[in-house]
Amino acid sequence: MIDYPLKKAFELFEPGPVLLLTTKQGEKSNAMTLSWHTLIDFTPIIAVVLSDGDYSFNTLRKTRECVLAIPNAEIIETVVSIGNCSGKEMDKFAELNLTTTEAECVKPPLIADALYNVECTVLDVSLANRYGMFVLEGLRAWENEKITDRRTFHAHGNGIFTLDGKDINLKRLMTKWPQFI
Amino acid sequence: MIDYPLKKAFELFEPGPVLLLTTKQGEKSNAMTLSWHTLIDFTPIIAVVLSDGDYSFNTLRKTRECVLAIPNAEIIETVVSIGNCSGKEMDKFAELNLTTTEAECVKPPLIADALYNVECTVLDVSLANRYGMFVLEGLRAWENEKITDRRTFHAHGNGIFTLDGKDINLKRLMTKWPQFI
Repeated sequence: MIDYPLKKAFELFEPGPVLLLTTKQGEKSNAMTLSWHTLIDFTPIIAVVLSDGDYSFNTLRKTRECVLAIPNAEIIETVVSIGNCSGKEMDKFAELNLTTTEAECVKPPLIADALYNVECTVLDVSLANRYGMFVLEGLRAWENEKITDRRTFHAHGNGIFTLDGKDINLKRLMTKWPQFI
Repeated sequence: MIDYPLKKAFELFEPGPVLLLTTKQGEKSNAMTLSWHTLIDFTPIIAVVLSDGDYSFNTLRKTRECVLAIPNAEIIETVVSIGNCSGKEMDKFAELNLTTTEAECVKPPLIADALYNVECTVLDVSLANRYGMFVLEGLRAWENEKITDRRTFHAHGNGIFTLDGKDINLKRLMTKWPQFI
């Protein structure tokens, strides 16, 4: 994986793709699947919403760090399977088909099979009880430039997923946001 | 437009499409383009993130109601144009090519050209100053079943947008969420 500019990392989250979130407590790393997330700022600041029934919830609250990975369409079945089992009962990385590598700024692992990884620290846990929300700040971003299928995918929450289709360039209309075009 | 089951409305937001948000203050209706949003609960509860520079920000804080509309790929240029001008200086509905109709539970208008509209009340404004975040609850949902192109689109934040591609049915893997499949 190669360095990806942190200032462009918001562009990875804004389309709302399905993400993987990794955590680590003691020696145990875990991953969960997540599609409830939004940008809060461009730096990037990202809000993620977990259920307090998720095994990652308490780990994230306690350790205050995670990695957000953006998987591609090729590994969609693995990603959906990760969202349908619990780290409480198994070692997902051992049982499912994912390669991890060490992160630079945080203890949770990067997912080498993903298009991008963003190492994150938890800025704010005060919304965890009320909304299951954690406010994250990206510290370091990585790209796996060797993956040829660059399509991400989106969840409808009912077992149906939509793969990315074609891109449309409308930079000519982005008159209000010259800094991003 | 026909009734759309409110309990299925979360499925419209979870994929992270670009939305339109309408507000109304006094006699003036307005619309803005929005892609910073996430589900918080299935009922649906939705968090939207606005800039305090957005004309809609104070209107939403004051009036505490809005409509979230999900536009299709055919009107992408209109939607992007709405995100690149301000209701402070113009009547967007008069100058841009959008048809509105009256909502049932709230004063802001529905957008008849959109695939779906969800009438929302603001549950929580306490995060508006810190994160620009408003927590919304959907009250009533509508579908325009006559629109044939059902593709939504996603923003990368840099003038590039991705249209929906093909759908993948992975209900067989959704063992943890039997209530939704």
